[in-house]
Amino acid sequence: MTKELHFERGEFQARLAAVKKEMSRRGIDILLLSEPPNQNYLTGYNAYSFYTPQLVVVAQDHDEPIWIGRFMDRVSASMTTYLAEENIRAYPDTYVQSATLSAYVFMADIVKELGGEKARIGVEMGGYYYPARAHADLTHALPNAEFVDADLLVGWIRLVKSPTEVAIMRQAGQLADVAMKRVIDTVESGVRECDIAAAIYHQQISGTPEFGGDYPSCPPDLCIGERSIAPHAAWTDELLPNSTVVNLELSGCRHRYQVNLARTIVVGNPSPAFQDLSKIAVEALNVGLEAVRPGTTCSQVEGEFRRALARYGIQKESRIGYPTGIAFPPASGERTASIRRGDETVLVPGMVFHMMPGLWLDNVGITITQSFVVSDTGFETLTATPRELFTK
Amino acid sequence: MTKELHFERGEFQARLAAVKKEMSRRGIDILLLSEPPNQNYLTGYNAYSFYTPQLVVVAQDHDEPIWIGRFMDRVSASMTTYLAEENIRAYPDTYVQSATLSAYVFMADIVKELGGEKARIGVEMGGYYYPARAHADLTHALPNAEFVDADLLVGWIRLVKSPTEVAIMRQAGQLADVAMKRVIDTVESGVRECDIAAAIYHQQISGTPEFGGDYPSCPPDLCIGERSIAPHAAWTDELLPNSTVVNLELSGCRHRYQVNLARTIVVGNPSPAFQDLSKIAVEALNVGLEAVRPGTTCSQVEGEFRRALARYGIQKESRIGYPTGIAFPPASGERTASIRRGDETVLVPGMVFHMMPGLWLDNVGITITQSFVVSDTGFETLTATPRELFTK
Repeated sequence: MTKELHFERGEFQARLAAVKKEMSRRGIDILLLSEPPNQNYLTGYNAYSFYTPQLVVVAQDHDEPIWIGRFMDRVSASMTTYLAEENIRAYPDTYVQSATLSAYVFMADIVKELGGEKARIGVEMGGYYYPARAHADLTHALPNAEFVDADLLVGWIRLVKSPTEVAIMRQAGQLADVAMKRVIDTVESGVRECDIAAAIYHQQISGTPEFGGDYPSCPPDLCIGERSIAPHAAWTDELLPNSTVVNLELSGCRHRYQVNLARTIVVGNPSPAFQDLSKIAVEALNVGLEAVRPGTTCSQVEGEFRRALARYGIQKESRIGYPTGIAFPPASGERTASIRRGDETVLVPGMVFHMMPGLWLDNVGITITQSFVVSDTGFETLTATPRELFTK
Repeated sequence: MTKELHFERGEFQARLAAVKKEMSRRGIDILLLSEPPNQNYLTGYNAYSFYTPQLVVVAQDHDEPIWIGRFMDRVSASMTTYLAEENIRAYPDTYVQSATLSAYVFMADIVKELGGEKARIGVEMGGYYYPARAHADLTHALPNAEFVDADLLVGWIRLVKSPTEVAIMRQAGQLADVAMKRVIDTVESGVRECDIAAAIYHQQISGTPEFGGDYPSCPPDLCIGERSIAPHAAWTDELLPNSTVVNLELSGCRHRYQVNLARTIVVGNPSPAFQDLSKIAVEALNVGLEAVRPGTTCSQVEGEFRRALARYGIQKESRIGYPTGIAFPPASGERTASIRRGDETVLVPGMVFHMMPGLWLDNVGITITQSFVVSDTGFETLTATPRELFTK
């Protein structure tokens, strides 16, 4: 069987060491990771299997993490992780959608095997894949253990990317660029909305002649005309009219690392006011980007952006950026730092953000955004699509 | 603003009445629905916003359901639901990814407003969008209420589709058919795996000249060559060799109703043993389908299938089918009935299943499947792709 690992073993070991160090600091003996991005980060695991119960267990006194999942997915664990076979554990299919058997009881038995009966156990209380019943079943099966919330423990470590991760994200950025180019080529009056969405997916995954893309962690936000004000609406079969505004956020995803990109595309002639506003949006975005350098805080970057807008009498008080990295459905961004007022996260080389301020004129928005990695001296863009309003 | 409703108001009212009746039977005063398919079923709501806290509240003594979500998504609620504006409630963006504010406390206040402080409250403990922290925050904010598990309460009602739902699912089946045809046309030696995946997505969404498709609730399972044994593996950039087996499960999704379809496609010449096995697979599938009629149980259908295989000395003891309907990420099937031994669910006209037995020869699988709706006298297929092995 061919192993599909995208990182050296040493990189996985460094990640694990950082997690164990933070566990130590918090007095956590055993960490139960239910979030697919964290499972991928620590083991390499990648398969679309997280809709059934699945955990990665990190125990302070166990060398490697332990993957626990459904029997039919253990082959994927062997193929995509560096773990020894004895650290790949699987529950039988009788546990799947059973009214009587809980996979979490099976998992609790492995925690006991690791000596965790009275341990301090960290769980991801706010994660997408740790339902209330999982917590109820685990705490019931381990009544003498102490459960603590370790949500985002791994997330904060993932925030700073290694050179190998950044190299993969440069490819993800190229995927986002070719998908955006495809849309700009495709959009015109009379085209069905669904055909634009289809073209986006096709190009995200078909990618470039050198490499293709993974499935994105969420659909593109394709906001057309009056639905501009509904940022997460579904597309329809309707035809683009002669004159409309398309606000599009899409992504490129390579080996599960995701880079986002949004642009506004006008069909027909944009009004002078709309064109003026787009220039202001780009100018403020550029001011924000120029503020990015190691040692600066997220809050300071937001402040520069906000003051640039204020010169035009525009007030905007909201988050203008979020980090991205490993992404699985349903979310696109990481849930740690935000580029917003009051976020005192200090920028460090290797952090990746999507800076995405949105401006509004009446009921029509302008979203011109930039994904970047913090470099030693400032920032490096991860996409090359020009920061401008596109018209067709 | 254009309303995008795919059902008459009377159909929503009938659904709500059925849910309230079941709540009554279980003594539940207030039902908090966190699962996006259930929210869609009862209100029509459709937007990709469920990665932030979102509930639909059904209270016995409140006429309509109440949608509660993020402020920027309330426009989507106005556009896609039949609810009166006062039954669309939204929390401000300060609650999003906040370390101090919980959207579930905001939601608990609305439960109190409905007189639910001491109510018996049903929650979806095993759902994908009811994390442990949601339950902790809600039970903390409503200490005098009694919380009971109402997982699948709505799911069992959704199992039987109305004529309008079936009509939409026929379109979803057509989308699956055109996507499968596209793959069969595309697959050949030298094609990159990612280009096959891209073609699937393109056709699923671009659809037919008459209508397009939604994003599918999960990526296609594209299992090629040695990865046939890893059913949920990701695709790669590799080229298809001169001789290989492609096992593909894909779907068509129309107005969020999903119909699944799997076929095995052989590149090169299949061995006589593989061809023979494919004929047995189709024969057993057909026997299973012929057993489908109102009044029969899921277990009986599985028994007929199992005995058809046994005639060839093949033993197989596993689930061979699951229901589909409204689907949102991450899952594709509904989680109620299963076509398996011991499942005594009685078939009723309007139930929709994907019958998907898999057979194995050494390390290579055959998956030839059929989605169908139970009719008054038997079954009606929802896809038209022939039940056979395809070779290229």
